Amino acid sequence: MSILVVGSVAFDGIESPSGKRDRILGGAATHFALAASFFTKVRVIAVVGEDFKAEEQAVFDRRGIDTEGIEHVAGKSFFWRGSYVDDLNSAATLATELNVFETFSPKIPASYTDSQYLFLANIDPVLQERVRTQLCDVRMVCGDTMNYWIGAHRENLLLVIKHLDTLLINDGEARLLAGENNLLRAANRILELGPKSLIVKHGEYGATAFFSERSFPGHGGPQSVAFRVPTVLLDEVVDPTGAGDSFAGGFFGSLAESGELTPSSWKRAMFYGATMGAFACERFGTERVQSLTRKEIDNRFAQLRALSHLD
Amino acid sequence: MSILVVGSVAFDGIESPSGKRDRILGGAATHFALAASFFTKVRVIAVVGEDFKAEEQAVFDRRGIDTEGIEHVAGKSFFWRGSYVDDLNSAATLATELNVFETFSPKIPASYTDSQYLFLANIDPVLQERVRTQLCDVRMVCGDTMNYWIGAHRENLLLVIKHLDTLLINDGEARLLAGENNLLRAANRILELGPKSLIVKHGEYGATAFFSERSFPGHGGPQSVAFRVPTVLLDEVVDPTGAGDSFAGGFFGSLAESGELTPSSWKRAMFYGATMGAFACERFGTERVQSLTRKEIDNRFAQLRALSHLD
Repeated sequence: MSILVVGSVAFDGIESPSGKRDRILGGAATHFALAASFFTKVRVIAVVGEDFKAEEQAVFDRRGIDTEGIEHVAGKSFFWRGSYVDDLNSAATLATELNVFETFSPKIPASYTDSQYLFLANIDPVLQERVRTQLCDVRMVCGDTMNYWIGAHRENLLLVIKHLDTLLINDGEARLLAGENNLLRAANRILELGPKSLIVKHGEYGATAFFSERSFPGHGGPQSVAFRVPTVLLDEVVDPTGAGDSFAGGFFGSLAESGELTPSSWKRAMFYGATMGAFACERFGTERVQSLTRKEIDNRFAQLRALSHLD
Repeated sequence: MSILVVGSVAFDGIESPSGKRDRILGGAATHFALAASFFTKVRVIAVVGEDFKAEEQAVFDRRGIDTEGIEHVAGKSFFWRGSYVDDLNSAATLATELNVFETFSPKIPASYTDSQYLFLANIDPVLQERVRTQLCDVRMVCGDTMNYWIGAHRENLLLVIKHLDTLLINDGEARLLAGENNLLRAANRILELGPKSLIVKHGEYGATAFFSERSFPGHGGPQSVAFRVPTVLLDEVVDPTGAGDSFAGGFFGSLAESGELTPSSWKRAMFYGATMGAFACERFGTERVQSLTRKEIDNRFAQLRALSHLD
């Protein structure tokens, strides 16, 4: 079943202890779409400038991603430059050029309206909400956000969060959104804001899903209040950019592939999320994920299982 | 099979966001012994002053812990005062009074010499090594240490680490000891220093065991290079003091109870370690662990399994 993702398709400049790339394909929607494409059909809504050329288009085409919803306009694509030289767990932003993203207004192609799964990548919550309300028949909506929107655009963000099936954020964002340091209490406060479930990402330590009584409609309550997945251990984290979006792509892609929303399909999806997030870190930008095979993914899924299961 | 632990039996003064205790029973050997006592017989070597009274002795007695090796001398017991008010993940030390610990020289009672498992809690590595070399027939030796010994007493510490079956330390200590930020590379460097296995504790995110070809003598190589256990989610961390020692007690206690050193017994032991570490945080000092039942422990073990297993 098709996943529709709305978010940024961009160029990144990245420095890390492993090296440097001046200008490579990036953006939350790009990372999400590539990761999800190993599990299901993916459609993208985004905007790019004249610098988005055949080379970039080919990355999407090779993974069979539907890019009809990527609008091409005059000007330059969104550009972000960041450094992980001082801290691999958190990027220092060196430059953000919104460019064509400044006036982005998502348009949904007619061929996309039967999408069953919707992922709202990290963009202005006003845009997230505009897309969501135009696709009210989808089976499941997941969304991401970041500190900036939690702080300066809180009211708009709360409108989006209220209707999400699943919110995916990281530790710091969860604590900021909830105004609470304890993770379990923060999660419970966030679930009171409306989302049926919450996934909190812990970087190199994995992720935790928090469930509510509404997490698995038609399947009774959750068997447990939470589910935790670790990460595989990498001997070199080359570039963590897009790891969270790749996690989301693996997670949501696997759920869409299974076609059902049960505790069991959810847990598998979390493991696929962690699997894709780890691959994303192994090379710069999309280099690793775009060249993966499903066999490599399933082998790593098995490795993650062996790393964490008693038997 | 009996575990012998050598380390501190002490008094702590603790402040945390949940409250304050001016003077309660503490010390690494105390926390370790209480946690391990739910799995196997435990013997303690330590030194206390005249302020260690019947009330403190009763805490050990109620758990059936053999305290023949706790030496009573004139003066005051070791005292530590710390605060978690600013950061629950890391104590700010406000006072350290070595007192009777200053001249501590561990003496091994004759009745302890048949101990099969030895735990060297965090003390001067010179003392750890002295005890270890007097008990060279034990089946397994685990040890803990801390930043202070890694920095200022490195040569002495390396002598101890070289002969350990398992070294248990936290993230920061592992990175400091290895001089390497990447956890997997740090672990591999530490395994080259001699220990057969390594456990790195991640606080609220659980722990990772790293194996070598020598981890499971007689059982072939390990099935995986590592094993990760998460933690249960607590809605209030009252006092993390002793959580690491309680993890060690649950881990080593479970291994001793099983009587075998296999990948399977090791994984179960890691889950029991995480279980005991979480209990330790629920109240101040030893309050929670000393009043536990094995049924509560096994229930939480099952909870931790459900939290992390696909089926």
